[in-house]
Amino acid sequence: MKTKTINFQKKFEKFTDQWSPKVIAQMNDCQFKLVKVEGDFTWHDHTDTDEVFIVIDGQLRIDFRDGSITLNEGEMAIVYKGVEHKPYAENECKILLVEPAGTVNTGDAGGDQTAQEEWI
Amino acid sequence: MKTKTINFQKKFEKFTDQWSPKVIAQMNDCQFKLVKVEGDFTWHDHTDTDEVFIVIDGQLRIDFRDGSITLNEGEMAIVYKGVEHKPYAENECKILLVEPAGTVNTGDAGGDQTAQEEWI
Repeated sequence: MKTKTINFQKKFEKFTDQWSPKVIAQMNDCQFKLVKVEGDFTWHDHTDTDEVFIVIDGQLRIDFRDGSITLNEGEMAIVYKGVEHKPYAENECKILLVEPAGTVNTGDAGGDQTAQEEWI
Repeated sequence: MKTKTINFQKKFEKFTDQWSPKVIAQMNDCQFKLVKVEGDFTWHDHTDTDEVFIVIDGQLRIDFRDGSITLNEGEMAIVYKGVEHKPYAENECKILLVEPAGTVNTGDAGGDQTAQEEWI
């Protein structure tokens, strides 16, 4: 039996670094990643893919060039491909990301916050 | 601004029927569906795709031919393509499913529990 139960809280206990998504599962070509965020991320977009943010704990704001949304625990949103956005969290926020394997967290923007693929 | 905040609890309040997944969002070709389940589902598999179960509220057991797993709130699992499985919940359980658009809930098994695509 290949399927295992994946517990978000136990996975979050495995790392402390922020803005560095960790892959916990893959469904077809789509990866599920946990990330802890706090403060400001870089403005970026993903030219080839949508991405999903699901807040597991805390509060996340996603800024767009024409507005912003706020996500609390039990809420999700889709950021559509090609749309510039900037995540922000006043206090540490725990998020489940869903996006295709190979998606880079900073899109084409690059910079110090760019993370490498890492499974936990 | 096209992106909206999607609140799972508010979406669950929009329906009462069980074993009938409701689409709440689509990321690329991948749909996010909420479903309420209770009792036994039919044995089935999906020959072309994996699928993801994330428990939002309650407890879900997924039976396989060679074992079973139990998922509680804050836990997820991937059922791999081609693997026969049967979801079961002793009490009503609220689930977030992630799978490609067009995935039929009963796979090739058919029967009364087969649901049509419905957005809420």
